[in-house]
Amino acid sequence: MKIEKDKINKILLAYSGGLDTSVAIKWLQDKYDAEIITYTADLGQKQDWDEVEAKALKTGASKAYIDDIREEFITDYVYPALKVNALYQEKYPLATALARPLIAKRMVEVAKKENVDALAHGCTGKGNDQVRFEVTFKALAPELAILAPLRDWGFTSRDDEIEYAAENNIDVKATKDSPYSIDQNLWGVSIECGILEDPWAEPPSDAYLWTKDVDDTPEEPKYIEIEFEKGVPTAVDGEKLSPIQIVNKLNEAGSEYGVGRIDMVEDRLVGIKSREIYEAPAGEILITAHKALESLTLDRESKNYKAEMAAKYAELCYYGLWFSPLRDALDAFVDKTQSYVSGTVKVKLYKGNCTLAGRKSDYSLYDHGLATYDESDVFDHESAAGFINLWALPVQVANEKNRK
Amino acid sequence: MKIEKDKINKILLAYSGGLDTSVAIKWLQDKYDAEIITYTADLGQKQDWDEVEAKALKTGASKAYIDDIREEFITDYVYPALKVNALYQEKYPLATALARPLIAKRMVEVAKKENVDALAHGCTGKGNDQVRFEVTFKALAPELAILAPLRDWGFTSRDDEIEYAAENNIDVKATKDSPYSIDQNLWGVSIECGILEDPWAEPPSDAYLWTKDVDDTPEEPKYIEIEFEKGVPTAVDGEKLSPIQIVNKLNEAGSEYGVGRIDMVEDRLVGIKSREIYEAPAGEILITAHKALESLTLDRESKNYKAEMAAKYAELCYYGLWFSPLRDALDAFVDKTQSYVSGTVKVKLYKGNCTLAGRKSDYSLYDHGLATYDESDVFDHESAAGFINLWALPVQVANEKNRK
Amino acid sequence: MKIEKDKINKILLAYSGGLDTSVAIKWLQDKYDAEIITYTADLGQKQDWDEVEAKALKTGASKAYIDDIREEFITDYVYPALKVNALYQEKYPLATALARPLIAKRMVEVAKKENVDALAHGCTGKGNDQVRFEVTFKALAPELAILAPLRDWGFTSRDDEIEYAAENNIDVKATKDSPYSIDQNLWGVSIECGILEDPWAEPPSDAYLWTKDVDDTPEEPKYIEIEFEKGVPTAVDGEKLSPIQIVNKLNEAGSEYGVGRIDMVEDRLVGIKSREIYEAPAGEILITAHKALESLTLDRESKNYKAEMAAKYAELCYYGLWFSPLRDALDAFVDKTQSYVSGTVKVKLYKGNCTLAGRKSDYSLYDHGLATYDESDVFDHESAAGFINLWALPVQVANEKNRK
Amino acid sequence: MKIEKDKINKILLAYSGGLDTSVAIKWLQDKYDAEIITYTADLGQKQDWDEVEAKALKTGASKAYIDDIREEFITDYVYPALKVNALYQEKYPLATALARPLIAKRMVEVAKKENVDALAHGCTGKGNDQVRFEVTFKALAPELAILAPLRDWGFTSRDDEIEYAAENNIDVKATKDSPYSIDQNLWGVSIECGILEDPWAEPPSDAYLWTKDVDDTPEEPKYIEIEFEKGVPTAVDGEKLSPIQIVNKLNEAGSEYGVGRIDMVEDRLVGIKSREIYEAPAGEILITAHKALESLTLDRESKNYKAEMAAKYAELCYYGLWFSPLRDALDAFVDKTQSYVSGTVKVKLYKGNCTLAGRKSDYSLYDHGLATYDESDVFDHESAAGFINLWALPVQVANEKNRK
Repeated sequence: MKIEKDKINKILLAYSGGLDTSVAIKWLQDKYDAEIITYTADLGQKQDWDEVEAKALKTGASKAYIDDIREEFITDYVYPALKVNALYQEKYPLATALARPLIAKRMVEVAKKENVDALAHGCTGKGNDQVRFEVTFKALAPELAILAPLRDWGFTSRDDEIEYAAENNIDVKATKDSPYSIDQNLWGVSIECGILEDPWAEPPSDAYLWTKDVDDTPEEPKYIEIEFEKGVPTAVDGEKLSPIQIVNKLNEAGSEYGVGRIDMVEDRLVGIKSREIYEAPAGEILITAHKALESLTLDRESKNYKAEMAAKYAELCYYGLWFSPLRDALDAFVDKTQSYVSGTVKVKLYKGNCTLAGRKSDYSLYDHGLATYDESDVFDHESAAGFINLWALPVQVANEKNRK
Repeated sequence: MKIEKDKINKILLAYSGGLDTSVAIKWLQDKYDAEIITYTADLGQKQDWDEVEAKALKTGASKAYIDDIREEFITDYVYPALKVNALYQEKYPLATALARPLIAKRMVEVAKKENVDALAHGCTGKGNDQVRFEVTFKALAPELAILAPLRDWGFTSRDDEIEYAAENNIDVKATKDSPYSIDQNLWGVSIECGILEDPWAEPPSDAYLWTKDVDDTPEEPKYIEIEFEKGVPTAVDGEKLSPIQIVNKLNEAGSEYGVGRIDMVEDRLVGIKSREIYEAPAGEILITAHKALESLTLDRESKNYKAEMAAKYAELCYYGLWFSPLRDALDAFVDKTQSYVSGTVKVKLYKGNCTLAGRKSDYSLYDHGLATYDESDVFDHESAAGFINLWALPVQVANEKNRK
Repeated sequence: MKIEKDKINKILLAYSGGLDTSVAIKWLQDKYDAEIITYTADLGQKQDWDEVEAKALKTGASKAYIDDIREEFITDYVYPALKVNALYQEKYPLATALARPLIAKRMVEVAKKENVDALAHGCTGKGNDQVRFEVTFKALAPELAILAPLRDWGFTSRDDEIEYAAENNIDVKATKDSPYSIDQNLWGVSIECGILEDPWAEPPSDAYLWTKDVDDTPEEPKYIEIEFEKGVPTAVDGEKLSPIQIVNKLNEAGSEYGVGRIDMVEDRLVGIKSREIYEAPAGEILITAHKALESLTLDRESKNYKAEMAAKYAELCYYGLWFSPLRDALDAFVDKTQSYVSGTVKVKLYKGNCTLAGRKSDYSLYDHGLATYDESDVFDHESAAGFINLWALPVQVANEKNRK
Repeated sequence: MKIEKDKINKILLAYSGGLDTSVAIKWLQDKYDAEIITYTADLGQKQDWDEVEAKALKTGASKAYIDDIREEFITDYVYPALKVNALYQEKYPLATALARPLIAKRMVEVAKKENVDALAHGCTGKGNDQVRFEVTFKALAPELAILAPLRDWGFTSRDDEIEYAAENNIDVKATKDSPYSIDQNLWGVSIECGILEDPWAEPPSDAYLWTKDVDDTPEEPKYIEIEFEKGVPTAVDGEKLSPIQIVNKLNEAGSEYGVGRIDMVEDRLVGIKSREIYEAPAGEILITAHKALESLTLDRESKNYKAEMAAKYAELCYYGLWFSPLRDALDAFVDKTQSYVSGTVKVKLYKGNCTLAGRKSDYSLYDHGLATYDESDVFDHESAAGFINLWALPVQVANEKNRK
């Protein structure tokens, strides 16, 4: 879609409060001679929202939305992914990937209310987030222009950008504090850049924001019991809690015990490999517990098929295709499988480990009478010979025929 | 196949030295009036082989084979599975499952040399091992009868069996020592029964044979560098080692640091769920390292497709289908993918954790110039807009069309 | 499960009216000294139901159920499979496989009403149908004994069986008429045995029951328009019809035009290959049409993922696992994908061919403006270069790195 | 990659002899002030090669390559895809998709010999072929610039282009003859545009180039016996033939009998749906025959897994990823499966149908003794009960537990 400058009079910009999007306010204003409204999502990251709002307005925005979408995030984005046990490339619980489509969807809602002409985001041209934002924009509001100032503005270095900021009275304090690029929400932190760009380098302690080093964790293990109903956690240690409370509580406990660190080289959608560090204490605890409960309550074929599908689901999320018909259909499959995934899982946090300590369910398919080797065994051992005869037959025939 | 008693004059029995297979020597001898030869595989479990041999002969065997197949086991069974990162139901590295087809294959070789009429094993009727043995027997020697005394003999309790042993002068010492049923080889230990039959119970410390409790592990982390060539480990900390040496060394290190414990409820092929405890220190370390190296050296599509296939491969192993045409074909696929999986991975063992600390390879597809956000960035950011336009198109059209 | 003869006083037998199940009435009666009730399903096969009932009673049954389950069969078994485009091993539309679980489910309902002790079927020990019956029996009524007289009775030849029938005054007329073994219902005919057991032999004309040879078909093509709503056919040539009417109408048309013959060597669940001939005129027409409509209305990712899943779904049906949790969950996925699979497909029947002649839908994702090469083209050609740059990147990097 | 005009002095252009690429010679020459060399692949399409060469030179090329790559095409591109039974979206045998990477690879070879600075092709911005060309160029010669004049030149209509041609003395005869856009090679024809852009319109007879309408086909069927060795056809009707001869012979026979027409709405990689007509007589015959032989010679698990993978393989081809590591690895898998896919298949061509008439193999896994229902039956029917007991167990337990 061609961007016609003249027609862009009002822009809604995804705003983080950081340098890039602050500069973007100014730059968009200048380039398009347009009114800028900012949108900032409260996803549980710890920020002073009044300050963010003030900064947006001071930098030139005509209006600054601060939108608390934590509940919707956990309920409608994180929990569906948890039911899948979705991990991109077997490791990444998708914190950032799950947040982007929700932010973009909310922006479209605001955009329609405010009657803007364009949606803008502060992503660069080589990351995944630009895709997640823009696919959602195009899916939900194809009539709106999309602006990606960081792809266009042409600063060739961080110093250029800071100079531009200084010239335009944009507050640049703290911009050089961290060597890392960071994104966080309730479901986890993503950390990249700096020394992490060397895959041979072990991440230094200071790269982690939430989780303690093993050496700083308590000397006694902590046991936690998590109750699930139809695949979704509903209580911790016997206490019914809201989704936000559950995730916060498990993030705190996990962080204290050094649980949830992930170090990976991953394949971005845009075709490159990048090295990423993540922290997802609640994610690790909940996925571990949820899988354990499924091992007890799902039959073998459902379990195995669902595990296979999890990679596809994670890929859709990671690739920006949350609002796609296939994700809807996979959710329908998953929801059906979760009908009996209700019960309790006990995990043990200790010295960086999140270990299973027990699982039980009224719908458990584990049958002690069938499983036991003691006197109460009810399994029909004699069936085995017949079973094996037929099970082996294709292999037996293949070997006989081909040996001739 | 009907067993015709009269035609069975010589039997080769898989012999562990324990109570069950000792009783089986006697019971088979009596029932078939046949000569019994025993076969015992040395897969690295710690046993006094002279004692095993002596016990077999004393109990009535005419001949007792003790066969050191450790090298073949690692090279031709464990390493292929490692190249796949094969884990049954995402957790179990298949130690017992990989050993059974090799034992059965070797038994067929001995059977032909000794000209026996039947092959016998000491598995019960509800486990997976009976299937692994018998499928292999049927695949490689369909002309031989298969006997499974434990499925047939009709002792209804352990006490019955011990009484029979006593009557027949079979040594029963130590048979009631452990509440657990145990199988071990170089690639891991499998532990079941006793309190472990309750999935809500945390495994007690004494259930673990190899690995230390976290509290008993050293206070300093241990870093290990593992070198791979075409997907297979060849050196540890710079020292070239044989397959057996590598696995032993990593088992020792992992055990010392409490690494490699697995607690799962799994689905057996025979249709029941069982709760199993495994220890696989070398397995956890090598699979962690191998996956990390693949993340660096495999392109995205190969990596994702191979990950999907790993479940199928593990299933074939677990289901007793090692000697099947599909496993051969999957190996051909995997070997091709491993062409450039050469390089070094550094892991850190500490307090039960096996953490990645670095990976490097001459064939690394991680390209710093493409990945970096610093000034050396060579990625073409402008391509992104076009990419996203086409990437989003199907979703955009689907939403537009269906909204009408 | 052990069968305790004494406890079996009343048996419900699946009864076809043919020799095998007639002999089974007598044989079960004798062996168990039990009352026999027969159950016969009307699935659209052409039979004189009064005659079937009379024969059952005359042969010794105390009661004979004739149950018209055609509507339920099409609506709840055939249409779900149609929505999937389920074909076992890419060819077989599963007519017999879909009928068995329904028959078995209805038998369980009758069994509970009649308070019988055992369920019996007339399948042999090497086919798939025994599995389909018994898995359903075990799933829905694990407390009932299952009898499979044909696996047990020990007649070693057809002649033995006929002699037994004659001795017991069982009508044997017509039993030697056909060299083929046949099963039919509304969704198709299965034909096996006789010359068909030679895979090198072309099926003779007389092996086909429904469909005409090409030489006997009309000289003018027939066009049919089929209307679908959410994946299910609702009208033919503009006329709203019931499920039974639609299938009957298309079977007639297809048969007249020689459409729907299938000749395959397939892999049975019990481990052997068999050569089967099928006729499924309505099946071929409806699956062709349904796939064409999906090509128009499903987005690429949904279409491709669903196609992959179709094999699994067909396998579950073929393997007797209709009443399994995975099938339920797959249906939920499929139903979601069918939300917009509404529209009309035109097919042309002619000389054995069923050819697509057109498809249209209000939800079509085919966009003429995007697809056309004429002046109305609205596709953004410039996006392509950027797209290709990123699409090619992994392959480009892989080649560069590995060439060094 | 930025194109630096000054550095482009010599360009190798993929040249078809048609209007677009003839105009491209001139346009590239003008725009870049560069020497143009043309490359034309002989893939079996019927053209006067001398005329093509003369036209290229007359239009301004300094040199014109005509390259007969038919043998390599069949052997190294078509046959690997045949071994897979690769069909994009279950229908398209990939004729054009398989040719593009080979043409591009050969162009890279010529480019290196001729020392050119850029590679150019005549694809538009919305098709798949641009991707196939450019991915291959980037994979094999990332250092060369890529030019796509049809994406850049900005003619907004066919008339504009013809006017430009006329002004530049480019021969435009025959350019308006066909309403269709056509690509052909030995493995098939692709036809699009014109009335075909309406998916509701039945393709008119004149849209088909090779195959006869059913009404024009012979009144007698034709039987053909095809012999395969390791998955590859080697003889027809008992006569050993070269790959080119085999494909030609089957194209002729199929065309005569109206076999091999395909009509589909497909999903392009660039995100749109398009309606395509294909003719692939040899493709339909060979894939039908090859699948039939695999049904006889592959065990069930290999067959089913391979069928699942075929979609992925076809996708890689269609998406331009022929020269990718995953395709190499899939080929290794496939080659292994083909070890015993040797034997003979008989097909019957008649009135547009290609029907199986028989298959046989020395490695057939079809075992008459196991399959037959006559007296020679050797299958152990008694094993079935045991098999079913264990097979049904997970479903039975799931139903029992969840009913509570």
